[in-house]
Amino acid sequence: MPPPNGSSGMLAISMRRLLLTAAIFLPTAALASQGTDHADPVAALALALVIVLSVAKLGGELAVRLGHPAVLGELLAGVVVGNLSLVGFSALDPLWASPSLDMLARLGVLVLLFEIGLKSTVGQMLKVGAPSLLVATLGVITPFGLGWAASAWLLPGQGVYVHAFVGATLCATSVGITARVFQDLGRLQTVEARIILGAAVIDDVLGLVVLAVVGGSIAAVNNGVGFSYGATALVVVKALLFLAASLIIGVYLSPRLFRLASRLQARGVLLALGLAWCFLLAWLSNLIGLAPIVGAFAAGLILEDVHSRGFVERGEHTLDELIAPISAFLAPVFFVLMGMRTDLRAFATPSVLGLALALTVAAVLGKQACSLGVWRPGVDRLTIGIGMIPRGEVGLIFANIGLGLSVNGQPVVDRSTFSALVVMVILTTLVTPFALKASLGRRRREAG
Amino acid sequence: MPPPNGSSGMLAISMRRLLLTAAIFLPTAALASQGTDHADPVAALALALVIVLSVAKLGGELAVRLGHPAVLGELLAGVVVGNLSLVGFSALDPLWASPSLDMLARLGVLVLLFEIGLKSTVGQMLKVGAPSLLVATLGVITPFGLGWAASAWLLPGQGVYVHAFVGATLCATSVGITARVFQDLGRLQTVEARIILGAAVIDDVLGLVVLAVVGGSIAAVNNGVGFSYGATALVVVKALLFLAASLIIGVYLSPRLFRLASRLQARGVLLALGLAWCFLLAWLSNLIGLAPIVGAFAAGLILEDVHSRGFVERGEHTLDELIAPISAFLAPVFFVLMGMRTDLRAFATPSVLGLALALTVAAVLGKQACSLGVWRPGVDRLTIGIGMIPRGEVGLIFANIGLGLSVNGQPVVDRSTFSALVVMVILTTLVTPFALKASLGRRRREAG
Repeated sequence: MPPPNGSSGMLAISMRRLLLTAAIFLPTAALASQGTDHADPVAALALALVIVLSVAKLGGELAVRLGHPAVLGELLAGVVVGNLSLVGFSALDPLWASPSLDMLARLGVLVLLFEIGLKSTVGQMLKVGAPSLLVATLGVITPFGLGWAASAWLLPGQGVYVHAFVGATLCATSVGITARVFQDLGRLQTVEARIILGAAVIDDVLGLVVLAVVGGSIAAVNNGVGFSYGATALVVVKALLFLAASLIIGVYLSPRLFRLASRLQARGVLLALGLAWCFLLAWLSNLIGLAPIVGAFAAGLILEDVHSRGFVERGEHTLDELIAPISAFLAPVFFVLMGMRTDLRAFATPSVLGLALALTVAAVLGKQACSLGVWRPGVDRLTIGIGMIPRGEVGLIFANIGLGLSVNGQPVVDRSTFSALVVMVILTTLVTPFALKASLGRRRREAG
Repeated sequence: MPPPNGSSGMLAISMRRLLLTAAIFLPTAALASQGTDHADPVAALALALVIVLSVAKLGGELAVRLGHPAVLGELLAGVVVGNLSLVGFSALDPLWASPSLDMLARLGVLVLLFEIGLKSTVGQMLKVGAPSLLVATLGVITPFGLGWAASAWLLPGQGVYVHAFVGATLCATSVGITARVFQDLGRLQTVEARIILGAAVIDDVLGLVVLAVVGGSIAAVNNGVGFSYGATALVVVKALLFLAASLIIGVYLSPRLFRLASRLQARGVLLALGLAWCFLLAWLSNLIGLAPIVGAFAAGLILEDVHSRGFVERGEHTLDELIAPISAFLAPVFFVLMGMRTDLRAFATPSVLGLALALTVAAVLGKQACSLGVWRPGVDRLTIGIGMIPRGEVGLIFANIGLGLSVNGQPVVDRSTFSALVVMVILTTLVTPFALKASLGRRRREAG
């Protein structure tokens, strides 16, 4: 590989030549476009994907060259592209409103979590089961309390349900960012990564239980029924039952399913079956009221390499190798879109900014309690606390649910609280790659 | 590999065991689902994909075991699933209305055409350029005339624009089915395949020109302007200019673009760039009024293996290998959906059925004129005539456009003509794999 400087120089020259060519090419295309209508709806999506994939790789490349994980570059590229309208360039805005692009991003995060699940096994997860469970429990209780406190302090006029709801949005860790950082740095096989991934799954479940309880209480208040311990217990039992059942039945079912499939003669059976399995568990997990990514991760967790042995023996690729390009195509769509949804104008309102910062501090400090759950020697507690920080898609989904709920005619989450929650999600997401990289680097220096 | 009978027996036993397990598993899931709402919109899409991928592989497997190409099984599996409501089972119907599923199918056909384009080179295409051009021209003129005649005969009450429009929907060959059959049989590298693929691209262009001319004339009549030779010529020139420009500029630009990209350090650059390139040309091709698949195919055609040399040298997969899983995931979605859209009830109306059969005969016979365009010795003319038969997505897009047009307040394509056109698309699509396989088999026997 040439030295960075020489490579950058050559890069700059080639880039210039490329831009020149584009300058000739694009007017031709623009000229050609005059007076034609857009017949096929896939065309707008295709253009959006061209831009998303290009800025993802440009941002990723810049991040990698500066020594950061690629995912941070993808997020920030999304922030830039999503806020171009602030500098008066809004020609691209209709592209991002496409529900198809959003759906591709959602599929992308499913496939990403499935891919990450494939790289772990149930045995490995059980080995870190106890610390994961403790880490997760501490990581739900503390942010819930701190979030409640921050909301009670800065939104004194709001009722107790608003505070409880804001607390609930701080519970669930979004494992996507952390997992990508570990993947980018080649550290997915470490104990810390496994504890975090396990804890993230458990605390997604716990977070959703908290949300279900808070949401259920709000519904009960609106119906004049009041809080019910029975209904709350049912939500909890249902969630735990589903996870246990899908793991146990999955572990029994999946090797049989794949052994059966390896006798089929059509091409592409392994990939189709693997994806169908991932999507089935994602759907089931949504059915029970959990986030679909929980099911996608569990689907990957259940599948072991031995299941695809029948396919590999006849010269096909392993499921890992087949899923990788699909995840490489769709996951950047998710991260760029996450960045795009950051409305930088929200930062200009002091009260929103104040609440956002307080919630971010509550979110970050709250998850540091996680490190208290790890007592095993040689395990890096700081890395675990940091790895649990991001509140990504689950936080956004929670905030969105709050927008739709109301108590006594008042929305539980109003527009400015929503903006503050979104900013909290963004900040925790942005801070994690930097902090995690620093923490892992410190660790490596200490070891070396 | 075990003998077919033993394998089938084992398959049956395992299938029974699997169904038993499912019988235990599914009620648990159904029980769990009571009283929860569907929070994440990706869940419905995930379930649709589970079903689509499963029936695609089941149908494909049956077809392969019966000695047919897998794509036929995927189509017929779609027909079965799409018409379950005829036997009173309509619980799944809302799933198929998802615009996201439709969009994935459209992306799938883009990626499939890109993949097919990757397997050919511009040099190979130019070698068959002259026969392709002649084949394409004959394959547009004859079906247009026969379609007009069939429409004039069976729809005597309709105006000349209706006949012209019906003729136009018979022009464009849908290369997806034929290409998959050649791919399934490992014959993509034959002269016949290249002539057909080249001709399909050219006659997609010609078909769209015919459509643009007919559509433009209808618009002119409605505006009281009348037919304009100038406007017609502009459409023709624009289309030809675009194709020539994108090929020439693409051939110049793409090696430079990929050489530049091979210096980037982020992971997954080759795949992202390849897909962005495919989607860019698909978008440009739609911009000029052509079908996006024309651009996707051209994008693949322009790229040569040497372009990814920089990536392969540092241990990455080739673009072919990276695209294959994405196409294996998305292309079956397209073929199953095509099958699903067949409304079997349309076959019950005699007049629709009569028109459908007449149009199918016109479509099939019309493309046999293509074989007259091949005078090279050793080339299988019958295979070329058969390979040009299917009218898939382009025919459906045309029929759909006709539904939205009207002359003097009357729709150009009414509901029953639309049904007949859909049935024609289905029949030509269904007949091709059988006929093509038979023709290729006859050829192989003659050679052997």
